[in-house]
Amino acid sequence: MRVDEKALRELCEKIFFKLGVKGEDANTVTDVLVEADLRGISSHGVARLKRYVDGIRCGKMNPKPKMKVVRENPVMALIDADNALGQVAGVFGMKKAIEKAKDMGVGIVSVAHSNHYGIAGYYSMMALKYDFIGISMTNSAPLVIPTFGSEPILGTNPLSIAIPTGSQAPVVLDMATSVVTRGKIEVYARMDRKLPEGWAVGEEGEIETNPSILLKGFLERKGGILPLGGEGETFGGHKGYGLSFIIDILAGVLSGSAFGKHTYESRYPDLGHFFCAVDISCFRDASEFKRDMDRYIQEIKSSKKASEEKRIYVHGEKEFENKERNQREGIPLDEKTLQMIKKLSQEVLGSSPDLNIRSNDQ
Amino acid sequence: MRVDEKALRELCEKIFFKLGVKGEDANTVTDVLVEADLRGISSHGVARLKRYVDGIRCGKMNPKPKMKVVRENPVMALIDADNALGQVAGVFGMKKAIEKAKDMGVGIVSVAHSNHYGIAGYYSMMALKYDFIGISMTNSAPLVIPTFGSEPILGTNPLSIAIPTGSQAPVVLDMATSVVTRGKIEVYARMDRKLPEGWAVGEEGEIETNPSILLKGFLERKGGILPLGGEGETFGGHKGYGLSFIIDILAGVLSGSAFGKHTYESRYPDLGHFFCAVDISCFRDASEFKRDMDRYIQEIKSSKKASEEKRIYVHGEKEFENKERNQREGIPLDEKTLQMIKKLSQEVLGSSPDLNIRSNDQ
Repeated sequence: MRVDEKALRELCEKIFFKLGVKGEDANTVTDVLVEADLRGISSHGVARLKRYVDGIRCGKMNPKPKMKVVRENPVMALIDADNALGQVAGVFGMKKAIEKAKDMGVGIVSVAHSNHYGIAGYYSMMALKYDFIGISMTNSAPLVIPTFGSEPILGTNPLSIAIPTGSQAPVVLDMATSVVTRGKIEVYARMDRKLPEGWAVGEEGEIETNPSILLKGFLERKGGILPLGGEGETFGGHKGYGLSFIIDILAGVLSGSAFGKHTYESRYPDLGHFFCAVDISCFRDASEFKRDMDRYIQEIKSSKKASEEKRIYVHGEKEFENKERNQREGIPLDEKTLQMIKKLSQEVLGSSPDLNIRSNDQ
Repeated sequence: MRVDEKALRELCEKIFFKLGVKGEDANTVTDVLVEADLRGISSHGVARLKRYVDGIRCGKMNPKPKMKVVRENPVMALIDADNALGQVAGVFGMKKAIEKAKDMGVGIVSVAHSNHYGIAGYYSMMALKYDFIGISMTNSAPLVIPTFGSEPILGTNPLSIAIPTGSQAPVVLDMATSVVTRGKIEVYARMDRKLPEGWAVGEEGEIETNPSILLKGFLERKGGILPLGGEGETFGGHKGYGLSFIIDILAGVLSGSAFGKHTYESRYPDLGHFFCAVDISCFRDASEFKRDMDRYIQEIKSSKKASEEKRIYVHGEKEFENKERNQREGIPLDEKTLQMIKKLSQEVLGSSPDLNIRSNDQ
């Protein structure tokens, strides 16, 4: 079914506000969640509302953080997020990077002691309206094994880069550095479907295709998801492992947060983020850059397809199309997510939400 | 067999010098090539000497470039490399990024109108001695297909990031964003070996395992190498495609050089590079950062191995071990490369080289 975007936003904001999150921050968290749903990335949308609500309730996420700039110069800043909701810390950090880039052409911001920040692309895209290139990375819970290993010691650590364009939709790469995300494995578990061989391994490093066994193993840190490039080195698995490792270094180690197997180890998850903004006009005329980007996109999209394929996509394209449709028709939610939201509304606000359910169309 | 490092260096320098490259630049190009051989990346070492010699002879590479800084501010620079040898442009660019980082904490340098620069890791590693993080990227000849395509429109566009450590060897990620490099396919062709299914596709986008057919197709822009993550989207091929695309945008489009299928299209290859240096001490005490890096590396290496695996590597580790051995025992060259070098020496210098061939050990 589809629900009304505005009603969904109001409900989420009310819930966060009621839990002690100040108005502006409740708005920020809601916007990151709803943006994920609008873009069709439902694994990172309001389906995760309960995780954030629980995070605040159990004290892992600080609803009233005293975020502060610990170190700063004209091009960089280190921010202590005081265990804020990751979205609040993320928006604060990326704004800071953009401010620096406005003055100096480049801004790099490292955020320490934060939480899960939702879709990485939300922050990189904040740079687009200034004709800046935006970069966003975060570390995350250890679920990914290094090449030749079987113990999850790396995160699915996503990387997002957003690039301004002219008439074409912006290019927004937003990718986990593992073959798949945990969310996708959960989807397969719910559908009782076997995983493709090459997504994940069990506790001896053997290929595992049963999603339920795998998810159970995660709890005991046995087995894990394979890095992008898959098992061993033949198809470049060591490259995906390297990308995950490097992102953890830039997000976790550089900020002085937890890293590797130590995230989510203590009272707080202690995640780190890395943000960067680059002003294109320092390098070349932004309109010429955007004209070249349009040409590049068109050349890729019109290049020869593999037989039986009808379309070549560029990154972010599917998501922009999803957003257009979902803004028009309402946000699609599955039954389980809807029930969870209703339950949370009862629990936190003491009332049933009116989400203006529109249709049974999924 | 193995040859003497010093003798090999002298020979390369003489050849470049004789072709009109000034002494300091001849030294730079040689150092990048020999460093690749020392690190065991022979596909990018002196085996490519002829390509550079031919590049200078046919006018694609300018032996006496007038490189200039076109735009500059305290944290960034745009350099016009005047079609210099890529190594000369690369060292110039990365030095500039390091200078900026010394002053401001961060330096980003975009290099336009350059050539093939050898191993990406050479430049990122230049940052290490300052306790800076180094980043190096370049675009390259179109050999890689986008997901669902069959026309090579992207490069193998490598990314290298070098991270300082304490007692452990530095982390040096240096990876093509395709499943494999062209060099590896050439190796399989020489050995008359079938390629693994999932490295490359033919002109209709079908899996191709014959390396000779594939290499022939490259000349006509039919078929190509698959992006990291392989065919389609199931194992994340769209992510590797995205990484290649983004690197071309940062290296090619941002610098105003050729991009996508247009590199190597005109008289000059017109490649672009992207360099970045980040001073760790702006964010946190560098010695604490390096202590954490050592700990992270040790935790990865001592984590549980997959059954039948004995060792987990971190990035750059194999190469540092190769270097140690090759510095001690001499640089391994295959017979074909040795003959090529001898021939070039005769052609350019009119004499046979004395390379102090040490053994038949490969």
